[in-house]
Amino acid sequence: MVRGLFGDHAETFPVFNGTGANVLSLQASIPRWGAVVCAASAHINTDENGAPERVAGIKLLTVDAPGGKLTPELIDRQAWGFGDEHRAQPAVVSLTQSTELGTVYSLEELRAVCDHAHSLGLKVHMDGARLSNGCAALGVGLREATTDAGVDIVSLGGTKNGLLGAEAIVVLDPTIRGLDYLRKMDMQLASKMRFVSAQLLALFEGDLWLRSAGHANDMAARLAAGVRDLPGVQITQPVEANAVFVVLEPGVADRLRKTFAFYDWDHARGEVRWVCSFDTTEGDVAAMADALRRAVSR
Amino acid sequence: MVRGLFGDHAETFPVFNGTGANVLSLQASIPRWGAVVCAASAHINTDENGAPERVAGIKLLTVDAPGGKLTPELIDRQAWGFGDEHRAQPAVVSLTQSTELGTVYSLEELRAVCDHAHSLGLKVHMDGARLSNGCAALGVGLREATTDAGVDIVSLGGTKNGLLGAEAIVVLDPTIRGLDYLRKMDMQLASKMRFVSAQLLALFEGDLWLRSAGHANDMAARLAAGVRDLPGVQITQPVEANAVFVVLEPGVADRLRKTFAFYDWDHARGEVRWVCSFDTTEGDVAAMADALRRAVSR
Amino acid sequence: MVRGLFGDHAETFPVFNGTGANVLSLQASIPRWGAVVCAASAHINTDENGAPERVAGIKLLTVDAPGGKLTPELIDRQAWGFGDEHRAQPAVVSLTQSTELGTVYSLEELRAVCDHAHSLGLKVHMDGARLSNGCAALGVGLREATTDAGVDIVSLGGTKNGLLGAEAIVVLDPTIRGLDYLRKMDMQLASKMRFVSAQLLALFEGDLWLRSAGHANDMAARLAAGVRDLPGVQITQPVEANAVFVVLEPGVADRLRKTFAFYDWDHARGEVRWVCSFDTTEGDVAAMADALRRAVSR
Amino acid sequence: MVRGLFGDHAETFPVFNGTGANVLSLQASIPRWGAVVCAASAHINTDENGAPERVAGIKLLTVDAPGGKLTPELIDRQAWGFGDEHRAQPAVVSLTQSTELGTVYSLEELRAVCDHAHSLGLKVHMDGARLSNGCAALGVGLREATTDAGVDIVSLGGTKNGLLGAEAIVVLDPTIRGLDYLRKMDMQLASKMRFVSAQLLALFEGDLWLRSAGHANDMAARLAAGVRDLPGVQITQPVEANAVFVVLEPGVADRLRKTFAFYDWDHARGEVRWVCSFDTTEGDVAAMADALRRAVSR
Repeated sequence: MVRGLFGDHAETFPVFNGTGANVLSLQASIPRWGAVVCAASAHINTDENGAPERVAGIKLLTVDAPGGKLTPELIDRQAWGFGDEHRAQPAVVSLTQSTELGTVYSLEELRAVCDHAHSLGLKVHMDGARLSNGCAALGVGLREATTDAGVDIVSLGGTKNGLLGAEAIVVLDPTIRGLDYLRKMDMQLASKMRFVSAQLLALFEGDLWLRSAGHANDMAARLAAGVRDLPGVQITQPVEANAVFVVLEPGVADRLRKTFAFYDWDHARGEVRWVCSFDTTEGDVAAMADALRRAVSR
Repeated sequence: MVRGLFGDHAETFPVFNGTGANVLSLQASIPRWGAVVCAASAHINTDENGAPERVAGIKLLTVDAPGGKLTPELIDRQAWGFGDEHRAQPAVVSLTQSTELGTVYSLEELRAVCDHAHSLGLKVHMDGARLSNGCAALGVGLREATTDAGVDIVSLGGTKNGLLGAEAIVVLDPTIRGLDYLRKMDMQLASKMRFVSAQLLALFEGDLWLRSAGHANDMAARLAAGVRDLPGVQITQPVEANAVFVVLEPGVADRLRKTFAFYDWDHARGEVRWVCSFDTTEGDVAAMADALRRAVSR
Repeated sequence: MVRGLFGDHAETFPVFNGTGANVLSLQASIPRWGAVVCAASAHINTDENGAPERVAGIKLLTVDAPGGKLTPELIDRQAWGFGDEHRAQPAVVSLTQSTELGTVYSLEELRAVCDHAHSLGLKVHMDGARLSNGCAALGVGLREATTDAGVDIVSLGGTKNGLLGAEAIVVLDPTIRGLDYLRKMDMQLASKMRFVSAQLLALFEGDLWLRSAGHANDMAARLAAGVRDLPGVQITQPVEANAVFVVLEPGVADRLRKTFAFYDWDHARGEVRWVCSFDTTEGDVAAMADALRRAVSR
Repeated sequence: MVRGLFGDHAETFPVFNGTGANVLSLQASIPRWGAVVCAASAHINTDENGAPERVAGIKLLTVDAPGGKLTPELIDRQAWGFGDEHRAQPAVVSLTQSTELGTVYSLEELRAVCDHAHSLGLKVHMDGARLSNGCAALGVGLREATTDAGVDIVSLGGTKNGLLGAEAIVVLDPTIRGLDYLRKMDMQLASKMRFVSAQLLALFEGDLWLRSAGHANDMAARLAAGVRDLPGVQITQPVEANAVFVVLEPGVADRLRKTFAFYDWDHARGEVRWVCSFDTTEGDVAAMADALRRAVSR
């Protein structure tokens, strides 16, 4: 199934969660002295409690990336010092599609990053926890969004797109090896793997992955449209996938939280993050827009 | 629920699999320079692809343990060198109940191990992947088999007793801390934890855990009884839980494998392991005994 | 000897090199899930080939720090998320005295950092590879610059101040333990420790450490004075210790390199770093100023 | 110099100590999922405080080896399970020459181990902390004892043969790479490397290494001869290098310790270890034999 979606050389390794998919992918792609170039906003940097460093001994070389997107120029800020034994050697670029800021790399942007990384001898990892949302946004298939763009290894998300708990590592560069041993060693091998694989089959055999992700994206667009013109509401990122980032005036977020749960993104500037999912309904969106309308008018 | 089963001070942390439960338990129980005393036959030594060493940087100090059981005397073979900076410092004893060899520690044996470990300043970890089978064999509850015997931290098994994929760490010694951070860092935190917890609730809220384990034990006893007197069949371990270890004459195992799947235990001496589970039926046992009868009579 | 210099509670552990001193100090000061707040320019972040991450599994939480100096405000940019299992837990602030940019924290600045860190429950590590230079610049002793300011653990430099190869970890907070085991485990225990200790005694028993460092600082001040007014020469950092940072016009650095060896600091902006040492002479300084005068006048 | 001694393809990396040499050598020779087959008596297993496990994430697969020597048959006890993801994959055989028990592999024994390891796809590491003693005992050069026998990477000892503190990794298999990065990452890179290298040059440029080691061996042989016939003194290992292992009657060791310092080897059976070095004199040996004579006659 995975080869049908990603290409004939793809190898796949189901795992339990996104942290596992990301850490194993990076660990498999670099030598022991390798480092990973990523956006400072990357999930692997901000939300894994140091798992890449702790479990895999990986140094992250971060760059501030507007909209959460890497570019060749941003990569160059960290991709240097090759051959200098004092510096952790850049070996992989890790990008997230769709990004942690709800934006989506275009195919051209992806190819530019991959081509640049490869020209420097680096491999490209895609944190695809929300890759389905990225594909839905771009209107392309998984292969176009990964293999054809030059990506070498993918953390393919399932849990954020409706599964109970299942992700997969998809290896596109056949020189990346040892995932079977690493998966066991890193405690991501299920003894009853069939119950993980079955979830992935349910999502990806047909077009459920694409329909669910497209629906989540649509709900985010609808939510953005419904609140964009409210007074004191400032949408801070292009709404391209299933997330809306908004700066609210003091007190508004707290009033809204009485009925809707969401995370602060940047407490200092009053920015919050709203994420829509496969089971967000039009009614949910309308209700939240209403609640916000009441909260800002107080 | 867990406190009802293990005592008022128990803290529980659901995880994905047994490797995770074991490695996190050990990591949480020792300082960075600590080592773990265990049987050479312990699962953490033989079947985790080095996860304790790799993920947690733990040195295992192994002893040959007849029947897979540690004793105070066996522990002493490795529990020495305290204060010597050249030696990894023994800090935890890890035992398995029921053992990897299908035997069961009596409550007296457990207490002796725990008392001895504590007298040396070591904590006691129980790999309880098959703890339910141990309790069924002893006819005691979880609390008697752990807390009351002096165990400090338990890997509580679910998957081998019928769950899709769920285990739990149960912390009985309140000085063991940081499991919440370690679980995330070690990639064992589910984003939809409820689907892991629900499995554990289904198993442990009533007596399903005990009935399933007791049934598996009964099937193993029945299997042992059915094959014990066959020519050339030598049962090598006391059948106290849900496993039967047998030495067969050359060729017999291969003939039997045409209809039943099982692992070699010690290829050199022709020893194999048969494990019964919650869904092994009396018919399965009879069919296997019949198949073995045919295989040995050829 | 060390207690005479740092206070009665100091414990000291000689090691081979600065990487070892830094990594062990940090590792001893944090739990397994702890992270270290430091300047992005810190040596532990830029020049240890990932040793903190790889050997000790430590995540570095970096902030851009003008002049290489942390402040309470800068620390706050990373010291948050306490209790959130998704975030590596800030546990130590690591500062460098004198800094990687040749500046020196005043005693007031040190106290402010230490007080703020302690108020958040964090310990303070000082990378003191050039602590002697810091003391010479401030005109204070080692105790005033560390213990009295609130520092908890120090990497005490020797190699940069004239030794063949010897550094020491000085533990000031008696709750930090296990250095003896960690030193062996981290491969920093010499079997003939006396040859490391003898170097440290030679440097620190009298005032050689202070005289050597003071001389190096003087030479840097003299060098700065000698080149400050040359056309196209821009000194970019206050010259407070033994280093001078300069932006030169294109081609100048390469001409100067024909007779003097030094590193680029920021190739993009033409910034280089000149470091004076215990054996830099007034003649060396004059010769380099002359060489620069010729290089800029071409 | 090293190429003259080991062959044209040798690459050498000076390091601080034996722990560093061993751990880096092993780390460089195996994939992340690799394990090391060694004698249970190997220094890497018994006296490194878990450095291989902790720093390099290496699992040691140990076998009981009489006289401290591995053989093809002993290697086979751990070199199995290739391709089984549950088992740490055997990737390197590590042997010690001369051994921890004072014995010396013959060239034929070395070749047998290397050939067998290579036939299984494993590399061979030699812990050569006392390789000079081994060469002196065999009457062969370093090349014959390593490269020509098939060894792939060597920890070349200096400190035990008279240096202040200097060892070297000698890479003989050119497919083993990355030592420069690993050395820095593992905190074994001296900033003033010349003071480490100078020691190695002093020892190995001429024949000092061989004369010093030969002398130490001679002193051990003389010591063994002088005590062999004393009542209650049982030499337990062939005295082939610079160590003598003896079982003494109760109380004798303690009386002897009043004038001579040495370690217990196996406290339970009263076995102690005496090691001679480059600066042991004939007078030292005579005095110790005399002291023992007095101690046993009391």
